[in-house]
Amino acid sequence: MSSVWGNHLKLSIFGESHGPAIGVVIDSLPAGVTLDWEEILIQMARRAPGKDKSATPRAEKDEPEVQSGLLCGTTTGAPLCAVIKNTNTRSGDYANVMEVPRPSHADYPAYVRYHGKNDVRGGGHFSGRLTAPLVFAGAVCRQALKKKGVFIGGHVASIGALQDEMLDKNKVDAAQLEELSHRAFATLNPEAEKRMREEIEKARMQCDSVGGTVECAVIGLPTGLGSNIFSTVESKLSSILFAIPAAKAVSFGAGFDISTMRGSAANDPYCMDGDKVITLSNNNGGVLGGMTTGAPLIVRVAFKPTASIAQEQRSVNLVTGRDASLTVHGRHDPCIVPRALPVVEAAVAVALLDLFLEDGLWA
Amino acid sequence: MSSVWGNHLKLSIFGESHGPAIGVVIDSLPAGVTLDWEEILIQMARRAPGKDKSATPRAEKDEPEVQSGLLCGTTTGAPLCAVIKNTNTRSGDYANVMEVPRPSHADYPAYVRYHGKNDVRGGGHFSGRLTAPLVFAGAVCRQALKKKGVFIGGHVASIGALQDEMLDKNKVDAAQLEELSHRAFATLNPEAEKRMREEIEKARMQCDSVGGTVECAVIGLPTGLGSNIFSTVESKLSSILFAIPAAKAVSFGAGFDISTMRGSAANDPYCMDGDKVITLSNNNGGVLGGMTTGAPLIVRVAFKPTASIAQEQRSVNLVTGRDASLTVHGRHDPCIVPRALPVVEAAVAVALLDLFLEDGLWA
Amino acid sequence: MSSVWGNHLKLSIFGESHGPAIGVVIDSLPAGVTLDWEEILIQMARRAPGKDKSATPRAEKDEPEVQSGLLCGTTTGAPLCAVIKNTNTRSGDYANVMEVPRPSHADYPAYVRYHGKNDVRGGGHFSGRLTAPLVFAGAVCRQALKKKGVFIGGHVASIGALQDEMLDKNKVDAAQLEELSHRAFATLNPEAEKRMREEIEKARMQCDSVGGTVECAVIGLPTGLGSNIFSTVESKLSSILFAIPAAKAVSFGAGFDISTMRGSAANDPYCMDGDKVITLSNNNGGVLGGMTTGAPLIVRVAFKPTASIAQEQRSVNLVTGRDASLTVHGRHDPCIVPRALPVVEAAVAVALLDLFLEDGLWA
Amino acid sequence: MSSVWGNHLKLSIFGESHGPAIGVVIDSLPAGVTLDWEEILIQMARRAPGKDKSATPRAEKDEPEVQSGLLCGTTTGAPLCAVIKNTNTRSGDYANVMEVPRPSHADYPAYVRYHGKNDVRGGGHFSGRLTAPLVFAGAVCRQALKKKGVFIGGHVASIGALQDEMLDKNKVDAAQLEELSHRAFATLNPEAEKRMREEIEKARMQCDSVGGTVECAVIGLPTGLGSNIFSTVESKLSSILFAIPAAKAVSFGAGFDISTMRGSAANDPYCMDGDKVITLSNNNGGVLGGMTTGAPLIVRVAFKPTASIAQEQRSVNLVTGRDASLTVHGRHDPCIVPRALPVVEAAVAVALLDLFLEDGLWA
Repeated sequence: MSSVWGNHLKLSIFGESHGPAIGVVIDSLPAGVTLDWEEILIQMARRAPGKDKSATPRAEKDEPEVQSGLLCGTTTGAPLCAVIKNTNTRSGDYANVMEVPRPSHADYPAYVRYHGKNDVRGGGHFSGRLTAPLVFAGAVCRQALKKKGVFIGGHVASIGALQDEMLDKNKVDAAQLEELSHRAFATLNPEAEKRMREEIEKARMQCDSVGGTVECAVIGLPTGLGSNIFSTVESKLSSILFAIPAAKAVSFGAGFDISTMRGSAANDPYCMDGDKVITLSNNNGGVLGGMTTGAPLIVRVAFKPTASIAQEQRSVNLVTGRDASLTVHGRHDPCIVPRALPVVEAAVAVALLDLFLEDGLWA
Repeated sequence: MSSVWGNHLKLSIFGESHGPAIGVVIDSLPAGVTLDWEEILIQMARRAPGKDKSATPRAEKDEPEVQSGLLCGTTTGAPLCAVIKNTNTRSGDYANVMEVPRPSHADYPAYVRYHGKNDVRGGGHFSGRLTAPLVFAGAVCRQALKKKGVFIGGHVASIGALQDEMLDKNKVDAAQLEELSHRAFATLNPEAEKRMREEIEKARMQCDSVGGTVECAVIGLPTGLGSNIFSTVESKLSSILFAIPAAKAVSFGAGFDISTMRGSAANDPYCMDGDKVITLSNNNGGVLGGMTTGAPLIVRVAFKPTASIAQEQRSVNLVTGRDASLTVHGRHDPCIVPRALPVVEAAVAVALLDLFLEDGLWA
Repeated sequence: MSSVWGNHLKLSIFGESHGPAIGVVIDSLPAGVTLDWEEILIQMARRAPGKDKSATPRAEKDEPEVQSGLLCGTTTGAPLCAVIKNTNTRSGDYANVMEVPRPSHADYPAYVRYHGKNDVRGGGHFSGRLTAPLVFAGAVCRQALKKKGVFIGGHVASIGALQDEMLDKNKVDAAQLEELSHRAFATLNPEAEKRMREEIEKARMQCDSVGGTVECAVIGLPTGLGSNIFSTVESKLSSILFAIPAAKAVSFGAGFDISTMRGSAANDPYCMDGDKVITLSNNNGGVLGGMTTGAPLIVRVAFKPTASIAQEQRSVNLVTGRDASLTVHGRHDPCIVPRALPVVEAAVAVALLDLFLEDGLWA
Repeated sequence: MSSVWGNHLKLSIFGESHGPAIGVVIDSLPAGVTLDWEEILIQMARRAPGKDKSATPRAEKDEPEVQSGLLCGTTTGAPLCAVIKNTNTRSGDYANVMEVPRPSHADYPAYVRYHGKNDVRGGGHFSGRLTAPLVFAGAVCRQALKKKGVFIGGHVASIGALQDEMLDKNKVDAAQLEELSHRAFATLNPEAEKRMREEIEKARMQCDSVGGTVECAVIGLPTGLGSNIFSTVESKLSSILFAIPAAKAVSFGAGFDISTMRGSAANDPYCMDGDKVITLSNNNGGVLGGMTTGAPLIVRVAFKPTASIAQEQRSVNLVTGRDASLTVHGRHDPCIVPRALPVVEAAVAVALLDLFLEDGLWA
């Protein structure tokens, strides 16, 4: 099980849902980046569970405790480790038994892979809670990138069949991304947010769950970041985006829609804007040949509906080897998409800082 | 520019479109795998350009010349290097000039990244021709996997707006995948192939191009291959699939559609089939928590329309810094999707063999 | 600055000497290994500073706090993170100034590399204290290896000009290695230990320091572990051994001495021992062609004398750009070799478990 | 078996002694480096077998054929592949049988590891011939480094018990290294070369072989290259140096000798030289805390005597499981050290260019 990511910048994520703590080590972070701690907490709060929409973005819980790599708020160049204590830990004599695997969770393949030795309490290392350290890492990387003029932000592009407006792929600006990336349930159309919230509430009332998609944009990237064949921007981003639980699809630019277009419509022509080369459209989402084009980078991620639902489901008993049924109890998000949005932004930030470092563009 | 892929099994792809040769080194291949050379040539032929649809799958050109790693047709455990000679090379005094970048090609970002030093002749290292060594590597890996009972095959799922039938995600079998993976333009519905060919021909007549999607399935994988957080099957597969030129989206199972479903419909319940745990549906495409579930692995890739079209397009002149127009001459595929299909299968084969080795499942 | 090591098993070490804590994340550890905590503490104690030679090996300080990856004393397969709190942390307003770099320390190159942003307090991330997490990781890996019949142990082979006896390279046994690896100042000849302690004490009285070498052996390894060209056992081991501060040389088998031998004397002939192939000598230290031979693995590491000495030394003032002198105050080990011995054993254990996993020899 | 090396710059070496060809792919080489082909051939010739000492350094054989990555003599940024044809290949029906493993060769562990499937003809992939592609890669990297003011050169420091003078660790200069790195049997003292040649000839006459050491220096490196904990200059260099067949020890600066010194003598004090910080001595060999200090980088490698000797040796028959004896026939170097010298320099060049790229110091 590898929870280490990256070629240059490296993340090592650890922890289980009911263990003492979760956390992350960010290795090879450049020295001299002064971090705005409040901004980090804002990102942590966007992902944190159980928050009311009107609440302050300052979360009292899930506050990362930095163990290393930071001196008076500035990175030292040494690995930055942050630990987030779990507060819902249980006694050590808790039975580590998982007889009936929950459908569409990691339970069953993990049982096979780890011979029943993995910590199953609360999902263990497979819990969505492990995205908290990723959001922390992303919040750190995002601040480093902002110093280079790079801005990252996204919105909930759809919940079930409900669509938000889409970003103008060729005209995203820093102010828009800054605004989006500070909101709890960001949509472009306020009406969309309202209807999405209703749809989520409806699913909850029906003991069901609902999926959705996230669209994320990045501006300010230099042209020529990344490379083909195997170090493409898309390879790098997708490899970390698919680490987010429930992510089932990743697309760039017009995504699957581009497959239905003619080349004459899909191609993004160039023109001069003063002495700068720009594109007249951005169906390619700011990436060509695995490299950034200078146009906004546009990535979209599809999330499945929450696997935990309060309805009886068919399953099997791994001990008896017989069919069984199960109802997942407890309080679960009927839709994880709004909370997945800051995780997507964080993953993108981490991947892009890795590319900056890999391409020697930092110093 | 990294053209090396893999953690355990490693590919190093080299070559430019108009250089002496292209090729691949496959490192850490297990010893003792006897290769069926005819099968390799069949895969090479599926990708090769300029073949008539009624032609024999045995291609006379693009025959890989093995330099190492193979003794009397059996792998030795040493790196397997295959070289494919280019026959369209030109004289060394050819001007390496790219004044007007082709829209939606790698030309412009490559120019910036490599300071104009990259070989631009025929696309250089960015040429789709570089997928030939990938298909070779995939053909080798596929044979290794077949010895473990793993079968891989796919079909052209759509061309433009035209859809083929989709694979039955829970009932794909070896015979079907074997059949599909030996065809030149594989569809499930023969009518679909006919209409798709007409659509492609129509685009060609209109000096245009068209995109499409490929759906690929794998059966016979052990349960529990791969792992979360960062070594997910999806991360591994997408990282190599996005190395295929023109790929713009990668999805698993129901893909983007799962984001519109309710959890009660999307979840894949378990039941016993004799003493085996199976799922009643397969919306997750055979992957949960980054690990294989034992159900067929289902992946879909979207390709944009060919960027080269015989119409005048707007661009810029990088030397003069002025707007310009260009028409891409020469003979280009109006649709690369049928040829991309064997590349997708090959990339999947490489990624899965890497996972087998990484998880210590080979010996 | 990369403090991540490994291809399969991965270590991520973090922390600074005067920060809140130091620690390590061990990624991809096999599931199901039950750890003997007392054994871990014994190894931690061998490395810990300030211990009296007659003291119990059980140290009260430097006790690792496991945050993840361990359930009821057994590994879960998820990353194992251990945090060791620093107790000598100082107030945040401590001036992070290093005007006069200490000769033969990392001070000066670190100042250049990190633009003066690195934490210099107590050596920061460059402190020898960072070997504590490595010893922890090694103690964990050593126990996993012992379940496969692999035993690791070493001795202080020399201090200054004083030599211990050398291990019989072809006849090391488990009992001997077990005994050595539980001692605080292990030598083969008890007289050697006594004279070495006197030599160290003499250096201390003269406000000076002294170097030495460590010889380490491993038995029980399968034949054929590792590989050429670039995954040699020697490459793997040396890459982690040179991470130990003050290590200046690494050799295998007869080491530098083999370069003075004739082939007829240096070659290790084979003979049968029942149905087992053994070697009659072991000048190659159990490695040929980068692979283990089945004979004991023998590695030797040379350490320079402690750089911190209580004598005035010439240096420069980096702020004024003038020559300066400095005397390093505080209490420093006049010889780090006895404490480096368990670090060598730990590094060897980590590297070998990585090789086991890489070669698919675990399951 | 991994024959891929590097984090940023990546080498993939392939080939067997009696296969069609050997070669290397150098991935992620910077674009725009103009190569002096004559210089490359000089390095190839220094390593090539069978050359007379008075011969021109221009070798007619072992000429690499570049397949990619080079356009009109300048690197394109795409992978540079060079193939070196084997001229001693034999027919495909050659029996791949190795009944009696040669002592101190890779034969026996390779037989176990590859289940007898590895190519044993002429040593196969384990042959010292595989250092030819490494020398080629080093010759390319050396030229890139020279453009940054970095010079690399070494000498045969000892053959058996015969010692050459040692480099003045603190005063090596470019002219000296340039001169050394263009010689066939480089020593500092011409008398040493003469006596060493006699010693080698004597060993040959006695059907025996002899080992030796190589000392290599690098000047012009920036201060602060590399880093602790695990990306040390020593880790990087040793990991590639131990890929050279017959290398048994690697040391930096004063090496094993530093372990016998007192700190007051071993420490390298700083002083100002104008506005530049320099060291008064260089016992640390230009590396502190894993980073370059600005002083010359000094590395020494010990090689064992050639394993192939024309004397009867004890061995075993792997087929019958009985003791056996063998005499290695054919023409073998009685000492490989003079030919290993350019390989050491090449490996150092590759490792240092990787560090330059990793640290973002190229652009």
